[in-house]
Amino acid sequence: MSWEIGVSDLGALAVGAAILGTGGGGDPYIGRVMAEAAMVRHGPVTVYSVDELAAEQWVIPIAGVGAPTVLFEKPPRGTEPIEAFERLAEYLGVTDAFPCPIEAGGINSMVPLQVAAELGRPVVDADGMGRAFPEIYMQTFHVFGIPGSPACIASEFGDTVILDRIHDNYQLEWLARGITIRLGGHSFVSQFPMQGFSVKRAAIRGTLSLGLRIGRAVLAAQKRHDDPLAAVCASADYAGYGPAFVAFRGKVTEVVRRTDGGFAKGQVTIEGVGQDKRSCATIDFQNENLVMRQAEDIVATVPDLVTVLDSQTGLAITTERLRYGQRVAVVVIPAPDIMKSPEALGVWGPRGFGYAFDYREPVRP
Amino acid sequence: MSWEIGVSDLGALAVGAAILGTGGGGDPYIGRVMAEAAMVRHGPVTVYSVDELAAEQWVIPIAGVGAPTVLFEKPPRGTEPIEAFERLAEYLGVTDAFPCPIEAGGINSMVPLQVAAELGRPVVDADGMGRAFPEIYMQTFHVFGIPGSPACIASEFGDTVILDRIHDNYQLEWLARGITIRLGGHSFVSQFPMQGFSVKRAAIRGTLSLGLRIGRAVLAAQKRHDDPLAAVCASADYAGYGPAFVAFRGKVTEVVRRTDGGFAKGQVTIEGVGQDKRSCATIDFQNENLVMRQAEDIVATVPDLVTVLDSQTGLAITTERLRYGQRVAVVVIPAPDIMKSPEALGVWGPRGFGYAFDYREPVRP
Repeated sequence: MSWEIGVSDLGALAVGAAILGTGGGGDPYIGRVMAEAAMVRHGPVTVYSVDELAAEQWVIPIAGVGAPTVLFEKPPRGTEPIEAFERLAEYLGVTDAFPCPIEAGGINSMVPLQVAAELGRPVVDADGMGRAFPEIYMQTFHVFGIPGSPACIASEFGDTVILDRIHDNYQLEWLARGITIRLGGHSFVSQFPMQGFSVKRAAIRGTLSLGLRIGRAVLAAQKRHDDPLAAVCASADYAGYGPAFVAFRGKVTEVVRRTDGGFAKGQVTIEGVGQDKRSCATIDFQNENLVMRQAEDIVATVPDLVTVLDSQTGLAITTERLRYGQRVAVVVIPAPDIMKSPEALGVWGPRGFGYAFDYREPVRP
Repeated sequence: MSWEIGVSDLGALAVGAAILGTGGGGDPYIGRVMAEAAMVRHGPVTVYSVDELAAEQWVIPIAGVGAPTVLFEKPPRGTEPIEAFERLAEYLGVTDAFPCPIEAGGINSMVPLQVAAELGRPVVDADGMGRAFPEIYMQTFHVFGIPGSPACIASEFGDTVILDRIHDNYQLEWLARGITIRLGGHSFVSQFPMQGFSVKRAAIRGTLSLGLRIGRAVLAAQKRHDDPLAAVCASADYAGYGPAFVAFRGKVTEVVRRTDGGFAKGQVTIEGVGQDKRSCATIDFQNENLVMRQAEDIVATVPDLVTVLDSQTGLAITTERLRYGQRVAVVVIPAPDIMKSPEALGVWGPRGFGYAFDYREPVRP
C-alpha cells in the first residue's frame, strides 16, 4: 500500500536514519532542511512499496557522495539533487522516473524525498545499502550485477558530468569520487538507473519505513519516559531486520581517529557499566562502525548494524561525535538476508574492509 | 584546395610538429604510430582548408590530455581517440563530424589524423593552439567564447565520461584534468564541438600544413647538407606566422627542472658560441618554452614560439630532453595575429603564466 510522508514525519525519519547510519552516513540535518523546504512548497510525498512498482517503471537512485562534513562548511545550492536526477532521466529519455534512496542511513535518506517533492513523483520505499556504507558500489544493485552507469553528477554551479559507459562499478566509484573531490569534496549523484523488475530483484525493501518506524519509536519513548533502547530494538524488528538487541552499555573512555584515504578510520573503547561492569567493548570504524568486540571476542561485524546510541535519549552518536565520557549503549540490528548472501558479503563483509576473517552471526549477551 | 596526407608524410609532420611544440606537446612518436597504423589500413586522409568547410559542417577537435611521458610507460590501447570522438558525435546526434587538431605542436598533431583515417573523414587544416600549450582552455576557440562542453573523455577500458554542461572552460579543464589523473595521467578528449561558421571565426588556420612544411624543409636541408635552421626560418613564414629568426646559438650549460602542480617547470641556460660568444641566454619553461632572455633583456615571450633546436640537425629538443653540453640554436617564430589579440594575450600572454609583465614583440638580433 502506498502512503504519504510529510513535513511532520521528517523529524522522526532523521532520528531513525541516523540510527541506520551506524555511526556514518552524515547527520541528516542539511538533507532534512532541503526535503522540508521542498515539501513546504509542493506538499507531501507518496511512498510506493516495491510490490506496487510496475515492472517497466524507471527508478533512479539519488544521493549525496563525499564528505558529509563538507556540507556543513559549504551548504548545497539546493538544486543539485534535482539536476543530477533530471539530467540522467533526460539522457535516458525517461520522463517519469521515480527517485529512490541509495542509502537508508544518514543524510541520504532525505535526498530522494526532496527530489520526489519537487517533481511531484512518488518515492520508492527501498534502498541499495540498507544502512550507510562508504563507497558507491556497496549496494545490492551492484551485488545483483546492475551497472551503475550511466550516472550523473551535478555541481553547485549547474555543471553536470555524465559517467556514460563505465566498465565496472569499481571504476564508477573511482571516477565519481575523483570528480567529487574536484567539486570540493561533496556532490550529488544519480546512478544505477533501472526499471521496476530490477528493483524487485535487487533492492532492500522497506528501509524508508524502517527509518521512520525506528525514529517514531524513539521519540514516543522519550515522550513517555520509557526506555528508548527497548523502543529501538522493538521497532527495528521489521522488513527482515532484527531481532535487535542491546549488546553493551558503558562509558566512552577512548577514541582513536585518523583520516586515511579520505575516510575517518579509528576505534572507540567503551568501559562497561551495570551488568557490563568490569568488561570492555571496542568498535572499529571506517566512517561507519564495522566490528564490535567485547574483550577479544567478536560480537558483531558488518553488514550487521552496530550503532552507538546515547543511553539516555536513544539518539545515534556518529563516529565523528564520539567523545570521552559519553554514556552509551551499543545496539546491534542484524541485517536482512539479502545483505548477507555470499555475493553481498564479498562486497561488504569484513574482508571487504580489509579484515582477515569472515562474517559471523552476532553474539547475543 | 583540399589535399591528401599519407603515411609518407608523417615523418616530416612529426619533425615540424615537434618544432611547433616549442619544447612541449610531447614527442609525436606514439601518435605517429597510431596514425600510421590507421593510414596503412584505411589509406591517406583528405585535408580540408577552413575556407572549404561548409558553414553547417560539424567539427570536433580531438587530442590527448595529460602527461605525454605516461604514453611511453603505458601506450594507449589505440581505440581511445575514436571512442572519444564518436561518442561525443553520437551524443550530439551528428554522424559526419570532421576531426580537427586542438594543438598543432607535438603528439596532438597526429591524433586527428588517426581518427580521420579510421572513419574515412577529412581532417581540418587548423587548430586552437597554433603551437603547444599546457591547459585545455588555452585555445582560440575559448578566446572566441565557444563553450568547450559537451566534451567526452575516453579511457583504455572503453569508459566514456561526458562533460555535459560545464559552466565555463576553466571548470572544464579542472574536471577533465581530474578525470585524466584518475585514468592514470593521460586520456583522450574530444571538446569544443562546433560548426563550420565557428571554425572560420575562431580557428588558427593552416597549422597542419605549417607543421608539414617545416618538417619537409628540415628533412630536405639535412639531405642536401644545407643549413636546417635557415630552412626552419624560411618555411615557418607561412599562414601568418613569422618572419622567424635564429635568436641565439650556444651550448646548454645548465638545466633546472622541477615538477610543480603536474607541470615540468624550469629554466635552461645557454652559453653563446660564434657571434653570440661571451653572451648568455636563458629560457623559462612550463612544459613549453615561455620566455627567452639574453643577459637580462627579454628577447621573446609567449605566445610567440621559442624553440630550441639541435644546431646541427635542426630537430627540436623538448624541455625534458635538454642536457648539459648540447649545441643548440634558439629559433623564434612569431605567432600569427589571431593569437595576439588582447583577448588571446589575456589567456596565454606572459601574465597568463604568472609573469608580471605584458607580451612584447620579439627582439631581432
